[in-house]
Amino acid sequence: MAIYQAPQRDMKFVMDELLDMQSHYAQLPGCENASPEIVSAIREEGAKFCTKVLAPLNKVADQEGCTWSESGVKTPTGYKEAFKQYCEAGWPSLIQEEKFGGQGLPYSVGIMFGEMTTGSGLAWAMLNGGSNGAAETISAWGSEEQKEQYMPKLVNGDWGGTMCLTESHCGTDLGLLRTKAEPNSDGSYNLTGTKIFITWGEQDITDNIVHIVIARIAGAPEGVKGISLFVVPKFHINEDGSLGERNNVSCGSIEHKMGLHGSPTCVMNFDGAKGYLLGPENKGLSCMFTFMNFARLGVASMGMIHSEVGFQHSLEYAKDRLQMRALTGPKNPELAADPIIVHPDVRRMLLTQKSLSEGGRMLNYYLAQQMDIMQHSKDPELVKKTGNEVGLLTPIAKAFLTETGFESANLGLQCFGGHGYTQEYEVEQNVRDARISCIWEGTTGIQALDLLGRKILMNKGENLRSFTKKIHKFCQTHEGNPDMAEFVKELNHYNKEWGQVVMKIGASAMKNPDELGAASVDFLMYSGYVILSYFWAQAAAVALQALENETTEEDFYKSKVITARFFFQRMLPKSQGYLATMNTGAANLMDLDAQHFSF
Amino acid sequence: MAIYQAPQRDMKFVMDELLDMQSHYAQLPGCENASPEIVSAIREEGAKFCTKVLAPLNKVADQEGCTWSESGVKTPTGYKEAFKQYCEAGWPSLIQEEKFGGQGLPYSVGIMFGEMTTGSGLAWAMLNGGSNGAAETISAWGSEEQKEQYMPKLVNGDWGGTMCLTESHCGTDLGLLRTKAEPNSDGSYNLTGTKIFITWGEQDITDNIVHIVIARIAGAPEGVKGISLFVVPKFHINEDGSLGERNNVSCGSIEHKMGLHGSPTCVMNFDGAKGYLLGPENKGLSCMFTFMNFARLGVASMGMIHSEVGFQHSLEYAKDRLQMRALTGPKNPELAADPIIVHPDVRRMLLTQKSLSEGGRMLNYYLAQQMDIMQHSKDPELVKKTGNEVGLLTPIAKAFLTETGFESANLGLQCFGGHGYTQEYEVEQNVRDARISCIWEGTTGIQALDLLGRKILMNKGENLRSFTKKIHKFCQTHEGNPDMAEFVKELNHYNKEWGQVVMKIGASAMKNPDELGAASVDFLMYSGYVILSYFWAQAAAVALQALENETTEEDFYKSKVITARFFFQRMLPKSQGYLATMNTGAANLMDLDAQHFSF
Repeated sequence: MAIYQAPQRDMKFVMDELLDMQSHYAQLPGCENASPEIVSAIREEGAKFCTKVLAPLNKVADQEGCTWSESGVKTPTGYKEAFKQYCEAGWPSLIQEEKFGGQGLPYSVGIMFGEMTTGSGLAWAMLNGGSNGAAETISAWGSEEQKEQYMPKLVNGDWGGTMCLTESHCGTDLGLLRTKAEPNSDGSYNLTGTKIFITWGEQDITDNIVHIVIARIAGAPEGVKGISLFVVPKFHINEDGSLGERNNVSCGSIEHKMGLHGSPTCVMNFDGAKGYLLGPENKGLSCMFTFMNFARLGVASMGMIHSEVGFQHSLEYAKDRLQMRALTGPKNPELAADPIIVHPDVRRMLLTQKSLSEGGRMLNYYLAQQMDIMQHSKDPELVKKTGNEVGLLTPIAKAFLTETGFESANLGLQCFGGHGYTQEYEVEQNVRDARISCIWEGTTGIQALDLLGRKILMNKGENLRSFTKKIHKFCQTHEGNPDMAEFVKELNHYNKEWGQVVMKIGASAMKNPDELGAASVDFLMYSGYVILSYFWAQAAAVALQALENETTEEDFYKSKVITARFFFQRMLPKSQGYLATMNTGAANLMDLDAQHFSF
Repeated sequence: MAIYQAPQRDMKFVMDELLDMQSHYAQLPGCENASPEIVSAIREEGAKFCTKVLAPLNKVADQEGCTWSESGVKTPTGYKEAFKQYCEAGWPSLIQEEKFGGQGLPYSVGIMFGEMTTGSGLAWAMLNGGSNGAAETISAWGSEEQKEQYMPKLVNGDWGGTMCLTESHCGTDLGLLRTKAEPNSDGSYNLTGTKIFITWGEQDITDNIVHIVIARIAGAPEGVKGISLFVVPKFHINEDGSLGERNNVSCGSIEHKMGLHGSPTCVMNFDGAKGYLLGPENKGLSCMFTFMNFARLGVASMGMIHSEVGFQHSLEYAKDRLQMRALTGPKNPELAADPIIVHPDVRRMLLTQKSLSEGGRMLNYYLAQQMDIMQHSKDPELVKKTGNEVGLLTPIAKAFLTETGFESANLGLQCFGGHGYTQEYEVEQNVRDARISCIWEGTTGIQALDLLGRKILMNKGENLRSFTKKIHKFCQTHEGNPDMAEFVKELNHYNKEWGQVVMKIGASAMKNPDELGAASVDFLMYSGYVILSYFWAQAAAVALQALENETTEEDFYKSKVITARFFFQRMLPKSQGYLATMNTGAANLMDLDAQHFSF
């Protein structure tokens, strides 16, 4: 049975060869720590840790799950020990600031490392997701005193963290939130309310848990303009930094979920829990928005990993499982049947997974590189320009890679036939675990509205034009190369079409805002195929150059070119289905009265 | 929370108005029992039974599951009692022959009834699937003595039945099967081997279980030409019909599966179990093939039901859940937010489910009607022609409706956001339960090869041409009607394109059989959209006629026309994505060496 192996050769291809991260780190102030040796060591040692320590826990944790009792939440066997080893090796501190004990490495190194932990088990990896979220929030909005109080313990992994946003009646629509914060005379607040879907809200792994909570201060305005941000520790912290009494926050129950059984999803009750304001009063939502792109890229990374995990399992099985003969005659005449990888349709499924995983990696690492620039560059013009591009691409990466990641996870199961439906292999778990990614950090529908509304039409298509110009320039650079012709021609065509599509939707959305909503998801999926084809064209260019330079890894680079060709021929044209539906207008969706959907 | 309600108005629309089943039953010898009153009574009483007795068990059964012990399999709470009520009401005997105590109703009535039991809980409904399979097999291939011995008990539900085909190393490729049958001097056989994935292979509900087993008689030829069919009862049957000793067949374990927890999936060990030959020696596989279309239509029906169930849940939620405001301004200003059904993208998801459920119902009931003709008509020419069309359409119905049914089930979850990922609602269960349908009775890939290879290219496209002529004739009939123009124009276009597509694939497959495999799944999905648009055009024609006749159910018929329009504008064009990829040739799939898929 396949056990997750970090695809190190491909990670290296994207970082070193496609994105030239070495020069990127060398040039960017504050990224000096990311020397080639350090980055390689993190990849190699991280890969070992993930395969040896984390991956073997994934199936067990799914079957065992978490259990709730009055006294807390019991996490699956091995989780706590794995986290201890993880902290001892210093992994939690990777991208944290040095002044708090962190290693001060760039965000993109964290994305690379996070890919490996997530690949070996999303449920376990989410523990770090919450802690990173809490650390980022406190680092950005906390007072110096708050930073000193919380950051070192979050950075070394002694304490965990969570993000407490959702309430049962408000998920997407946070303006409806009801949790109240009553001010105390000492400047603290008493928080009262119930939060749901709090990932790793309660656990038996870290000494303390630092909850970042959104709530409404008594008397604050209605809606999103009255939301403030608070830090609420599970245990009070004494002046000397030691832990005091329990705060009035507790886990009321955990959800029974489709997947991610290893990760407790908690109902958190705040019964006058003492909390401390983070950042300006009533500005909680805009404070949260500063991390939105990072959070979404984290989920985009999961999407890509669902493809990778599905691919690793089904590739091993497809080479091994003997069933039927090749359509062109026996390939394995000495045995009773051929391995199923001889069948064109099995290859279609495998190459779909492969091209989405490798393509998603290129897009995500590129976005992480741009986020490094946003965080570290001293050039405000560049930061702004980069921010605009990141804002444009992130909702696409998030929604497209999770939707196609779920598709890939399902293809992984399909390759196994009936065996894939059982828990004998981890492919059905991958499907169940993957399903939440299309919802987390904003559903596909929400990403699509953000993309088309805020990120494109609100700036009259300017951000999109900047990006299509980049693609156009790439095409011009390579149009003289006959080996690149098959890619450049198509990419040029789609790049132009992409711009035209937006003009058309924009014109109709001006007249009727429902036109925007009616086109949005199809447009997002269309855009995803176009963007990934741009990255696959870049991969082909790098690989063709390596082949021309007489590389010693001919098979690797040839495989890249073949996979790029597969993407252009078999994946990119899928965009035509979305193109054909997106421009049919809102009437076919809006005409039916809500009462007449069923009789 | 939504509880399954049989969509009786739509079932009636398809049976009475679209397919004129009343005349069909009246004209077909042996279908006289299916009077309009009887069919209505079955629909109405069946719907009550399903909503009251079966549907409430579905979630409980999923959470409780089945448990195995040495002494047998314990099924979920309430299953046995529900089955008792089911038998007391006479439901198992619906389509069975009168001479064995059956009600002698046509197959299509069984498909209508089965839709309701499956909709209220697939796991429970599968118990009947196995029994029907066993009854059909014995009825077709058993001796008179065997029929007398088994049929009455299968028909009244005292005994259950199973189909034992798969072994761990052979699923699709039954020629590899190893289970042996050693002849005894009394004409019986001793069967030895292990079968897996036996649905309801062991249970605590019926007094006896009748296993239909494929095995190889000692000395039989290798491969598919040496497969014979046996009946193996769990308990031996005494001459007086009473039950004797246990036979040497036992359940070794049950699978832990992604879904269908209520239905035990058994490893069945045959340790010299006594079995009796059914039908001619070594012709077991072709005996089994006689039921293939029926079995596949059964799974196609499940696919349609996954859409229906997802739709019922998410429609209720979408009308109820308040979140955000409509893009065109508040629709519900007195409340804090609008119900999410105001959002175009939520409507896109709901209408996708609705159009697939109602469209699938038309296709499936039509196929069932054709199967009635195959079973009952005295006109051999008609039977042959009908068989050819059924052979063409069944793999499409099976694969297209299960693939899109799984998509719909997932859209159902998506409408719920994070709530859908929990077991609070049944939408995530619907996703898990639905996932197996794309595999059962031949995976999507196998259906696609059957369709393009056996059903189209092997007869040089003749069967497809007959069907496209039918569509062409429909278009001609309605081309003078301006209200039908929007449908007829598109249908005509796609109908022509469909034929051209086949010509092109056929030409390339002549040169290289891998071209067939490379195009097959895309072609099948393309065909599914075209066929459903044909049925939606028919539905529109019926509805427009009713509106012209000044029906008292204006809202119902207008909803039909709007849904037909949705299908033509938003679903049918999805075929263009498949069209764009299917003709890109096999090279982009076959060029990559199996060893170079990963590095």
